[in-house]
Amino acid sequence: MVFSEMSVCGYMPEDLLDYPYFIEKCEHSLEVVAQSCQGIAAIVGGVIRNPNKGRLLQNVACFMNNGRIEQVIPKTLLPTYDVFTEARYFEPAKESSIIEFQGVKIGIAICEDLWDQYNDFEYTTSPAEQLKALGADIIINPSASPFNLGKQSHRNRVFSGQVNRFKIPVLYVNQVGMHTELLFDGSSKAVNPNGDISIQLPEFEESVAQLEYHHGYFSVENSNLTIGTDNVALLHKALVFGIRDYFQKMGFKKAVLGASGGIDSALVQHLAVEALGAENVLAVLMPSRFSSEGSVSDAVELSKNLGNEHIILPIEDVHSAYEGSLKPIFEGTEVGLAEENLQARSRAVLLMAISNKKGNILLNTSNKSEMAVGYSTLYGDLCGSLSVIGDVYKTQVYALCEHLFSSQGKIPRNIIDKEPSAELRPDQKDSDSLPPYSILDGILRLYIEEKKGHNEIVMEGYDAAVVAKVMRLVNANEYKRYQAPPILRVSTKSFGKGRVMPLVAQYEI
Amino acid sequence: MVFSEMSVCGYMPEDLLDYPYFIEKCEHSLEVVAQSCQGIAAIVGGVIRNPNKGRLLQNVACFMNNGRIEQVIPKTLLPTYDVFTEARYFEPAKESSIIEFQGVKIGIAICEDLWDQYNDFEYTTSPAEQLKALGADIIINPSASPFNLGKQSHRNRVFSGQVNRFKIPVLYVNQVGMHTELLFDGSSKAVNPNGDISIQLPEFEESVAQLEYHHGYFSVENSNLTIGTDNVALLHKALVFGIRDYFQKMGFKKAVLGASGGIDSALVQHLAVEALGAENVLAVLMPSRFSSEGSVSDAVELSKNLGNEHIILPIEDVHSAYEGSLKPIFEGTEVGLAEENLQARSRAVLLMAISNKKGNILLNTSNKSEMAVGYSTLYGDLCGSLSVIGDVYKTQVYALCEHLFSSQGKIPRNIIDKEPSAELRPDQKDSDSLPPYSILDGILRLYIEEKKGHNEIVMEGYDAAVVAKVMRLVNANEYKRYQAPPILRVSTKSFGKGRVMPLVAQYEI
Repeated sequence: MVFSEMSVCGYMPEDLLDYPYFIEKCEHSLEVVAQSCQGIAAIVGGVIRNPNKGRLLQNVACFMNNGRIEQVIPKTLLPTYDVFTEARYFEPAKESSIIEFQGVKIGIAICEDLWDQYNDFEYTTSPAEQLKALGADIIINPSASPFNLGKQSHRNRVFSGQVNRFKIPVLYVNQVGMHTELLFDGSSKAVNPNGDISIQLPEFEESVAQLEYHHGYFSVENSNLTIGTDNVALLHKALVFGIRDYFQKMGFKKAVLGASGGIDSALVQHLAVEALGAENVLAVLMPSRFSSEGSVSDAVELSKNLGNEHIILPIEDVHSAYEGSLKPIFEGTEVGLAEENLQARSRAVLLMAISNKKGNILLNTSNKSEMAVGYSTLYGDLCGSLSVIGDVYKTQVYALCEHLFSSQGKIPRNIIDKEPSAELRPDQKDSDSLPPYSILDGILRLYIEEKKGHNEIVMEGYDAAVVAKVMRLVNANEYKRYQAPPILRVSTKSFGKGRVMPLVAQYEI
Repeated sequence: MVFSEMSVCGYMPEDLLDYPYFIEKCEHSLEVVAQSCQGIAAIVGGVIRNPNKGRLLQNVACFMNNGRIEQVIPKTLLPTYDVFTEARYFEPAKESSIIEFQGVKIGIAICEDLWDQYNDFEYTTSPAEQLKALGADIIINPSASPFNLGKQSHRNRVFSGQVNRFKIPVLYVNQVGMHTELLFDGSSKAVNPNGDISIQLPEFEESVAQLEYHHGYFSVENSNLTIGTDNVALLHKALVFGIRDYFQKMGFKKAVLGASGGIDSALVQHLAVEALGAENVLAVLMPSRFSSEGSVSDAVELSKNLGNEHIILPIEDVHSAYEGSLKPIFEGTEVGLAEENLQARSRAVLLMAISNKKGNILLNTSNKSEMAVGYSTLYGDLCGSLSVIGDVYKTQVYALCEHLFSSQGKIPRNIIDKEPSAELRPDQKDSDSLPPYSILDGILRLYIEEKKGHNEIVMEGYDAAVVAKVMRLVNANEYKRYQAPPILRVSTKSFGKGRVMPLVAQYEI
């Protein structure tokens, strides 16, 4: 039986690994599991103290048989880029070794150990090559490989590439679950030497399958291949799973969100109802003097369609009280950002008051395009316990809503079709301050995901002044993202721990 | 002329290092500096592309002479723990090499390269040992070594230990400046083979000194040893420097803060006035129905003593407007946390409105003890652009205020002497919810800085139930710290990037 990487503690306990009593627990758990391995062998991922000089810990896979840990295989390649920080904790293995079991030579390559040639850089050692040289018949790859859109085909390239390189089958076993920012999607699979995928387990679902191994090939009865979900459907599945698993693991049950009648909050509300049930979602409508009639009626209709409770709580009284109190300070100044932010922050305080009073957890509804350019109010609409769509560009928000509209029909058409507006001043439109989202998102992708500079982005066909403006906005708003909620990561480069930018910096763009 | 580690770009540009155009600029800067090395040799820290397989970059010291880079020495030991993330970017050097200059064999050990035996773990290689074996006459140690209390004596142990081990002098050149969370204190020094410190440059000040090297010893005219500042005075210096350098680097001039009449905001206000000048500090007094008369008069007196502007802005109107709006939802429930948080959040919205309107940057006034146990309101008193004392325990806040009182006499005695209270309900005292600060801080230090578990802390003489309560509070409030402002780091373990904890976790304490 093969378990995923670090399965006794979950991936990734981060600085809990600095605490000796936590490590003792991890080691103890491995012993407990080993004792139950009677008549069945298991490969179990965990963490142990490094018996030699160097970093204090090792990320290991334990081969368990006959009630005990018979062999310990440490990981060699410690991913330390993007969301990965393994060199912070672990000493790498110095050499590879093979497990012999029932006449089969098993090579264990823990997650990154199989990815020596598939990053922006090439590692100086190849554990899989060493395993092949030691005569491995199969490679087992216990993993904690986070999901992002496109990851499935990336993994398939890696596995088929390695199978082709070494001519031995690969068994990949991945974690399932949401962990702070990361979504682990499972999708475990066995790949045969001819490149065929013998089995692929479902996405975002715990499951178990039994495989046979004969003459260099894996085979399985009732192979259930769930390959080929399209990107929008997969993104939808990922986000619903992320909310549900976050709430479950944190012991939360009920959610609250601000429902503006706009497309972002509509999407988050829809996802929350799917994840938690309509009875556990509370939508709070907080119209201001600048809110259109349509905003309120659209938001009401959405809640009726989804079947969740909603409250209407106008912010006028609070808004005027702030204006009154600040009059001596604001008098004679031009109306601007300070006044607009007052509204967003009034709403946040009301939402947090409801959250504190009723125990509903506040969901953040900002999308990635807004988070990128700072089209959001810190301590206002940037509040929340979890950012559901903070890694979803506005163009993807539209695609998701079209998908939900055509499959479930609960989002009022008007919410999807109306022009986006923050409604913080009369007749405000997003397009007053920002380029069209199709252009904005294109530039953002090149800058954030592809790490291109100004000249390179312009070479892709974008207007130089627009590119400079967008880059400046992204750079100037690092401070807001520094204090933003954790974001469900669904792209190759999400705001959060995978993108660490200095606040103190002077940019030339 | 010796410059500090990564001096062309500052330490640490973090994920800007992922951008090729940023690296090109770093490389170009090294070339420009090299061209000016005519008649003088220089050692300059920078970043270059790794010419070989492996990670894409190297952290290097360039030996420049005759207008060009004559030798490039990459770093071997890449610190990746606490606030350090170098393995995220750099390929380590595979071997050491020596620079021969005017008959002297110079070994360059970049920062951590000299610290092989001075961490929680011991590295498997020792670059300094290799340099000694290659016949180095001296070791030059360009560094970016962040400040914390006790760091100076830690460094002295390292340098005297290494000098004693290798019997050659060490020249340590450190960066000066504030970078997001980190304070670099300079304090560059030369240590001779007999262990004597030949020179030590001032703390938190850029400076240049000229040394002679003869017969294995450094010597200097007018040696200016500034060793032995006591801890409280040093902490004071560090915090003032941190505010000043942050504002200067960010292009900010003026600050605003909420002045409660309590000791934390008094300390921050005092430090801000010292750092920025009284004319650039605005104190906002926001009494509520629960504020004591003394709070307001104490806060007014402090502003008068310090000479900064203050405004009195009662929150009653806003507070009642929230209560009125929330009445239908709160009716029939018990008054509690939701109501208390309303006040803290009303104040934050007012402060941010003033900040947005006038351009004054909001300083956060929470101390480390509060941040640790979550005795603070998210989106309320946790707001701010910079947390000045978020790494200063309450007992240290008292020590600092006593120091400032006796040296400058501007903090009203009553602010120091009165019992701490959040004043969010009638007759509230901190001691209602928390153990006395001397005990709380003792437990927090053992749990956070020393990474002890429950049993170990109890063994130090603390009550088991109190320890469990404090640990539970620390664990349960990770989510607040996740969204807290950047904190000036002055301890060995600050909240922020040096302490990365999962939000999704189940603790047994």
